[in-house]
Amino acid sequence: MNITIVGAGNMGAGFVKQLTAVGHKVTVTARDLAKAQAVAGAHTGASVAAPAEALGDAQVVILATGYADAVPALQGLGSLEGRIVVDITNPLTADYMGLTLGFDTSAAEEIAKALPGALVVKAFNTVLAQVLAEGPAFADGQIVPVFYAGDDERAKQTVRALVESIGFTPVDAGGLKNARYLEPVAGLNIYFAYGAGQGTQIAPTWIRRA
Amino acid sequence: MNITIVGAGNMGAGFVKQLTAVGHKVTVTARDLAKAQAVAGAHTGASVAAPAEALGDAQVVILATGYADAVPALQGLGSLEGRIVVDITNPLTADYMGLTLGFDTSAAEEIAKALPGALVVKAFNTVLAQVLAEGPAFADGQIVPVFYAGDDERAKQTVRALVESIGFTPVDAGGLKNARYLEPVAGLNIYFAYGAGQGTQIAPTWIRRA
Repeated sequence: MNITIVGAGNMGAGFVKQLTAVGHKVTVTARDLAKAQAVAGAHTGASVAAPAEALGDAQVVILATGYADAVPALQGLGSLEGRIVVDITNPLTADYMGLTLGFDTSAAEEIAKALPGALVVKAFNTVLAQVLAEGPAFADGQIVPVFYAGDDERAKQTVRALVESIGFTPVDAGGLKNARYLEPVAGLNIYFAYGAGQGTQIAPTWIRRA
Repeated sequence: MNITIVGAGNMGAGFVKQLTAVGHKVTVTARDLAKAQAVAGAHTGASVAAPAEALGDAQVVILATGYADAVPALQGLGSLEGRIVVDITNPLTADYMGLTLGFDTSAAEEIAKALPGALVVKAFNTVLAQVLAEGPAFADGQIVPVFYAGDDERAKQTVRALVESIGFTPVDAGGLKNARYLEPVAGLNIYFAYGAGQGTQIAPTWIRRA
């Protein structure tokens, strides 16, 4: 495919490497063309163009700027009518520890607010009832994780022990505010199970390179 | 541990089964005590109590109601000062396909709104730059997934082919609105990588029982 990459950061560099390696033709653009050149580097099949010249006949535009720059960067390309724009951005806060959109509260925080003395820990919300009923052992020796998030360390340790006692793998997901992440993770889990018809013996987890 | 379970639905039933199986002492309560009795069933170590009598010396209270009932159900137990409350709820919409909190928009939708003709597809936002750079092969033969969400089916098919061409596993995550899930999934990924110090060769995925 012919692909235009907007943005010359780490993600842009990764796309140049992976896409040119399998023969895609890539055009890199950025406000700073020297940066675009550095990213395109010596990769065969990668070239650089100013924003207004970068679109050509690209079938796909990959938006690899930060979210704050996304709209102006796309507008700088000219008309995108009918073009496929792959949005890879996340609307991160300056410290990378929150989102600037859709991130104002969570069920867990509302519950904690309503019951000031209680030590609220978010947990098990990404475990479907059918998974809980059958237990933690999944295919290939994988164990279903239980993410837990809270602001009281001792309460979290107790929940961790509880999770371990029934054979699930406890995963510390930080402070209670991170329920703002865990609840949408569960939302996607429920979408896969019911909306996409994958069934209810599924669970989100994290994997590692080694 | 002594554990009080508030709510007698599928999650409550799963907790009774798993917790009593390893010897925890469980008290089940619900507005409808007949339902609580049905859930406690014949499990050794499980008993039923009215809300006002259900707390006893429980070290952990598991909130297994729907989110809408959460606060009144907890208040019905009496004071929770110093108690550990495990919130397992998700603030789901009536059709289960959205959240009622923290779910009003996403970067992808804002970008699509600003560029009406463009076919915006959310993708790659859960792939860290370092993972993209190194490629899709993780430990134990696992392949990093790329979730993609959009409202134009042909655009999604093109993105799917693009993802496949560089060896990642494409996962259809539904309409563009589901960027409201994918961006927090990435937020949690970034928290694990940087906030929790797990490093950047990690990725979210979904696992199955068989």
